[in-house]
Amino acid sequence: MNSLQLEKIGSLKLRQAHIPEINSNEILLKVTHCSVCRTDAKMWERGQRDLVLPRILGHEICGISESGKRFVVWPGKACGQCRQCRRGAENLCREMQIMGFHKDGGFAEYAAVPESSLIPISDKLPGNIASLAEPLSCAINALEQAGVEKKDCVLIYGAGPVGLMTALAVRAAEAYPFVKEISPDKLVRSEVFRRQVGIKCVTDVDNNTSDFDVVINAAPSRDTFLKGLADLRPGGCFCLFSGLTDDSPIPVSVINEIHYRQLGITGAYGCTREQMRSALKLLSDYKEDIRLLIDDHIELEDVPVVLPKILGGQALKFIVKL
Amino acid sequence: MNSLQLEKIGSLKLRQAHIPEINSNEILLKVTHCSVCRTDAKMWERGQRDLVLPRILGHEICGISESGKRFVVWPGKACGQCRQCRRGAENLCREMQIMGFHKDGGFAEYAAVPESSLIPISDKLPGNIASLAEPLSCAINALEQAGVEKKDCVLIYGAGPVGLMTALAVRAAEAYPFVKEISPDKLVRSEVFRRQVGIKCVTDVDNNTSDFDVVINAAPSRDTFLKGLADLRPGGCFCLFSGLTDDSPIPVSVINEIHYRQLGITGAYGCTREQMRSALKLLSDYKEDIRLLIDDHIELEDVPVVLPKILGGQALKFIVKL
Repeated sequence: MNSLQLEKIGSLKLRQAHIPEINSNEILLKVTHCSVCRTDAKMWERGQRDLVLPRILGHEICGISESGKRFVVWPGKACGQCRQCRRGAENLCREMQIMGFHKDGGFAEYAAVPESSLIPISDKLPGNIASLAEPLSCAINALEQAGVEKKDCVLIYGAGPVGLMTALAVRAAEAYPFVKEISPDKLVRSEVFRRQVGIKCVTDVDNNTSDFDVVINAAPSRDTFLKGLADLRPGGCFCLFSGLTDDSPIPVSVINEIHYRQLGITGAYGCTREQMRSALKLLSDYKEDIRLLIDDHIELEDVPVVLPKILGGQALKFIVKL
Repeated sequence: MNSLQLEKIGSLKLRQAHIPEINSNEILLKVTHCSVCRTDAKMWERGQRDLVLPRILGHEICGISESGKRFVVWPGKACGQCRQCRRGAENLCREMQIMGFHKDGGFAEYAAVPESSLIPISDKLPGNIASLAEPLSCAINALEQAGVEKKDCVLIYGAGPVGLMTALAVRAAEAYPFVKEISPDKLVRSEVFRRQVGIKCVTDVDNNTSDFDVVINAAPSRDTFLKGLADLRPGGCFCLFSGLTDDSPIPVSVINEIHYRQLGITGAYGCTREQMRSALKLLSDYKEDIRLLIDDHIELEDVPVVLPKILGGQALKFIVKL
């Protein structure tokens, strides 16, 4: 089968591979769509904590089983036994194996998927839209970790696809989404989506109120953390949805602001099956809006070409169609 | 009246002062007990964010009204109108005026106290014990911010009086308190209290499990933050109960651990009236244990003598008796 393998950092190649063998409790899924994530681009550029090489990347997967059923894939495989699994945080399982990270993913014609990771989708949901369930469910996880409530004002750093999907999830939670974006290009690119969904745009100039209930970073700059904390009302919550890529350390005075202003910080990493089911519901409800986030449908061999665009912030979502 | 005034950093003097004039909605409280807080010592040594000089310090106050009623004092004065007040976080009020910080406090024979800040105490609760309601309610606030639940394992950095009171609150919440303390002296000094309340002691050697649900720092070292995060299970919560006094910055890799391990961080600063009422209940229930935290009852003029002992960790609680 055709597959796209990250052989080493910087080297992503189209390769012929054997159709994967399946273990008990797995099925062979014919991949129909796999959307490209910024994390795929990051892995290609600099690696990632959970990446084991060589690897078939791709973790935003929609496909069809041999019996003709359509599924999206929760890319994790959790033990089901550890403390995190037992308390419903399977994304934090100590034995976690993630497709496209620890195990081969969806940039291939077929993928071996644990039966427990298959989430059925409605006939009415197109596969390209369905493949966005994974990133949207990560956004839903961020909202849940930050405890977003109805009528909260939520500021999101970054108007890339994840920031915009997060804003959509905020809107769906009956809260008020705002975005901050330093790139004028990204603001232009996201304009129709923002208008349609009702996402307000905040500039540094008009935001001197420091009164957001929740701030979420969907961008990896250290500034999102430093400025984001200052954007919060006392007792507000900052969600570290993106890890930070800058190396400069954080002044202790910033940490002490957390103490004095009784702020909350929460991480968000991955998602659960339950959150993917919620995401599918949202994708159905906002199908026409979500479509605006798709730049193009591409072939496997086009992925290396679009990764630099994704890293450069010159694109929203590309979806590999197989 | 006699009063103890912090005239400038490092200079705390016994001074004659006028009995304070009271505004409408205030009463004149005859102070009977005011316990000495580490924050008083810190103000004397280096100042504090909310300190306005010159100032009569002291914010752990118990007293008696002209009509003979006994009260402890919630040291805050909140506006009651702002967003924080309306959502029950009056300790974060933007207009906050704290006795012993912004306004004169309890190291004096009399204090002017807003009627709304008076919390009545039972005849059965001695004034020395009652004066500990304020620090204990700050500990209760820390537990509430961190979301401590029944059966949680809670690690507290620091076996000083605040750490020990926090551990008591953990025990009262039917969770399991553990303390980490680097000073052998403090471990000896707290031994009877720890045994009586059922607080386990953790050393660096036996704590390689990184599996605490909650970690709370009741000590200002930067290490409590760095090590404390590593002590948490994935999804666990660190409570910044103490600000950090070291100046070395925090590496970004530490912040990224919050992202990847989906940790929570929360600040805790001050307390609410509701939490002070909870603290009074706890003080009644654990009266005999709490007594073990009191080193001595002292006079106003002894306070400057005990502050270095408090800063040096050579003491638990001193209570000024007036």
